[in-house]
Amino acid sequence: MELTPALRSAFKDLLGPKGAIENADEIQPYVQDWRGNYKGHSPLLLKPASTEEVSEVLKLCSANKLAVTPQSGNTGLVNGGVAYGELVLSTQRMDKIRSIDVHNNSMDVDAGCILQSVHTAASDANRFFPLHLGSQGSARIGGLISTNAGGVAVLRYGMMRDLLLGLEVVLADGRIWNGLNGLRKDNTGYDLKHLFCGAEGTLGVITGASLKLFPVPKTATAWLVVETVEKAVELLSHVRNEVGDAVTGFEFMPKTAVELTAKEIETARDPLPHEAEWRILLEVSLPSEDQARASLESAVEKAFEADLILDGTIAQSVAQSDDFWTVRESIPMVKRTYMTSVNHDVSVPVSKVSEFLKRSGKKLQEMLPGTEAIAFGHLGDGNIHYSIAEYADSENARVRKQASEITEIVHAITTELGGSISAEHGIGLLKRDELPLHKSAVEMELMRTVKSALDPQNIMNPGRILKTS
Amino acid sequence: MELTPALRSAFKDLLGPKGAIENADEIQPYVQDWRGNYKGHSPLLLKPASTEEVSEVLKLCSANKLAVTPQSGNTGLVNGGVAYGELVLSTQRMDKIRSIDVHNNSMDVDAGCILQSVHTAASDANRFFPLHLGSQGSARIGGLISTNAGGVAVLRYGMMRDLLLGLEVVLADGRIWNGLNGLRKDNTGYDLKHLFCGAEGTLGVITGASLKLFPVPKTATAWLVVETVEKAVELLSHVRNEVGDAVTGFEFMPKTAVELTAKEIETARDPLPHEAEWRILLEVSLPSEDQARASLESAVEKAFEADLILDGTIAQSVAQSDDFWTVRESIPMVKRTYMTSVNHDVSVPVSKVSEFLKRSGKKLQEMLPGTEAIAFGHLGDGNIHYSIAEYADSENARVRKQASEITEIVHAITTELGGSISAEHGIGLLKRDELPLHKSAVEMELMRTVKSALDPQNIMNPGRILKTS
Repeated sequence: MELTPALRSAFKDLLGPKGAIENADEIQPYVQDWRGNYKGHSPLLLKPASTEEVSEVLKLCSANKLAVTPQSGNTGLVNGGVAYGELVLSTQRMDKIRSIDVHNNSMDVDAGCILQSVHTAASDANRFFPLHLGSQGSARIGGLISTNAGGVAVLRYGMMRDLLLGLEVVLADGRIWNGLNGLRKDNTGYDLKHLFCGAEGTLGVITGASLKLFPVPKTATAWLVVETVEKAVELLSHVRNEVGDAVTGFEFMPKTAVELTAKEIETARDPLPHEAEWRILLEVSLPSEDQARASLESAVEKAFEADLILDGTIAQSVAQSDDFWTVRESIPMVKRTYMTSVNHDVSVPVSKVSEFLKRSGKKLQEMLPGTEAIAFGHLGDGNIHYSIAEYADSENARVRKQASEITEIVHAITTELGGSISAEHGIGLLKRDELPLHKSAVEMELMRTVKSALDPQNIMNPGRILKTS
Repeated sequence: MELTPALRSAFKDLLGPKGAIENADEIQPYVQDWRGNYKGHSPLLLKPASTEEVSEVLKLCSANKLAVTPQSGNTGLVNGGVAYGELVLSTQRMDKIRSIDVHNNSMDVDAGCILQSVHTAASDANRFFPLHLGSQGSARIGGLISTNAGGVAVLRYGMMRDLLLGLEVVLADGRIWNGLNGLRKDNTGYDLKHLFCGAEGTLGVITGASLKLFPVPKTATAWLVVETVEKAVELLSHVRNEVGDAVTGFEFMPKTAVELTAKEIETARDPLPHEAEWRILLEVSLPSEDQARASLESAVEKAFEADLILDGTIAQSVAQSDDFWTVRESIPMVKRTYMTSVNHDVSVPVSKVSEFLKRSGKKLQEMLPGTEAIAFGHLGDGNIHYSIAEYADSENARVRKQASEITEIVHAITTELGGSISAEHGIGLLKRDELPLHKSAVEMELMRTVKSALDPQNIMNPGRILKTS
């Protein structure tokens, strides 16, 4: 339906001038993504200040069949939170830490809380919230839950859904579901929070969450040089045999990306220049720093004896460990700044990462000789950020012209190996039309069944994940 | 609809004599629970040998509106798997380990696999599957997933749903959803496996699963005497501050239960007789036995200095650690054998366990003076197995006569404290009619919405969890 003047007034009466914004200039930052890849439009930006206000907004929308695009920190990568005519519903004004229960190791927060604030609040209570990713200074909890965010600690702590104890959600018709409990065990029927986590705002608006907290880990970090990805996968098994589940990070990077980062970023240097192809950032967390260091040293020594690594160095200080991570975390930015690339966020079983790289590399080199395949990311989770890149501007880059063919090849190989075409970024509009090529008809039908049941009028972020009309 | 002779023949043609059983004597063990609390009936026991056969069975059922009760190891406690007129669909013949991927730390299994077989297969591959519970010699994976089983390692490894990578499910209309992937990260739409996990067979039949495997942990175990439950909760925080996330078990037991067990069970003895009220079984897991032992010793020493424990002993051998666990694990059986009790499986936030016990204890002592409140279980998860017991046979026991009033009191206090009336056992028929008293109307409606969407004919274990007709 249309946003009539009467409805505009109703929203303004409901939310006041801070909560209902019509000025195009003020709306503009909310209808484009942070990289500037997508530009949308919206007649009205809604910024409710409470769960009750979100509920009233959705009652109005539902009664008048007005579509809504929920938005949180707007740091997504798949064109899931940009409105194209929908009302924008931003949870940014709802940014309070509601409570912390130290003995229960839980924290209740508003959906608009910035991830960094959650880290700080946990740390102030001598606790740890494990979700860490590049955008943590601006990403907000509601969006992180709606996209089931991943990051660098998934190997040990899981994805965002694994860190949830409960949710508060406003449903498409405005009803409030208060599923905010701090319980670690609750087998009283269907576990509804997992429906909304990862649904990208298509089933309701997340307004609050109970999060799991953990003891603060003590870590030790190593930078290792390995010859092949097969060796890296063997190394992961080796290290887990040695130090058990204490492996909290296992990131991989190619030499070229490390060298480019060291060259271009002032604060970055290559910790251990070497002619071999691959680098591993290995992090071990244990109760004490001494234990972490000793276990890591012993595991690395044995890996060296077992011919799994060619060289390695262990951070001697927090600053040095931060240096290792700076290299790893600068790679996306450096790649974006100095090259033009077509990017993918895929996962395959860890045992098949090497096969994925070989098959993709071969096929793409035949198609676009001389371009670089830059594969990096969370090897411990089988999650590969896989870019086909070249030193050229966007206008002239061959990879840009053949972007869709490249992606088709990468995703086809991913699916053949039992993988996922979106390991951690989600589907949004970007990958929506591809999805049915990679999922079974039954799974697509099941998803539609769920969508129709929970949002029968199709007003919640319509068309994201699933094509609807 | 009715099971006509023609339909009987159709099932027999489909599954053969091993797969379609009409003999009442053969059916009988499948229509009663293992404790003998519930006796049901069924005209036909179906034992398909493959996912495809399950699919054909459900196509026939769906086309003819025949209701089905899926059953796995039949070790449930809430009358969820006993048929009352429905066809029984047992997955017991589907009991293969399908594959193990060591580098991916995953295992694919049939739904009928016995938990113990999964443990053995993992162990043979130098891996660990963490779900451990009393019935592991007969409980099967499909049922463990359908009930989202808990057990003694939840504190560190989570519930059954946290140990799942993927599922294979036959839907109510016979379609097969193959969601069996071994991926640790997959953000391609709604995470459907969490719908079926914990649904107690009301949304479909689980036929296969991908399970997460872990490195084999090295553990150290302590038996500690504490004065109050408040101190025990403080102790948990203390130990987690000291040894971090290495705490894998934190069980609590009252003195009376330990003494009764030591007296009645030949293989059990009280590790540390003491007049104080509570015992804690604390387990720490770390990469090496030396680390585990050293960390545990240091944490226990500091707890002693901080006045959190009155006495304690650390197991000097695996045999001694097993002795500690024998006491803990014998409590349910001893209680059942020597007392009559009304039992509950509740959870509250860990910070509220003490308040729960005080309030429940006071109210029940007023009502039934002289009976024993036996509270034990997974304190680290806030999960209390709470029994009101007396030394009397079932015929004469006051607690039995006032069972429903007792349960009403216990569950009301649980809900007031933000808890769950079924922490790990599920709802089944046993707690179904109570559920709406403890959940919001919105949550009940949401559950019905999901049920209707996935099983519109209401043929999947009808009436369990939700009253339907």
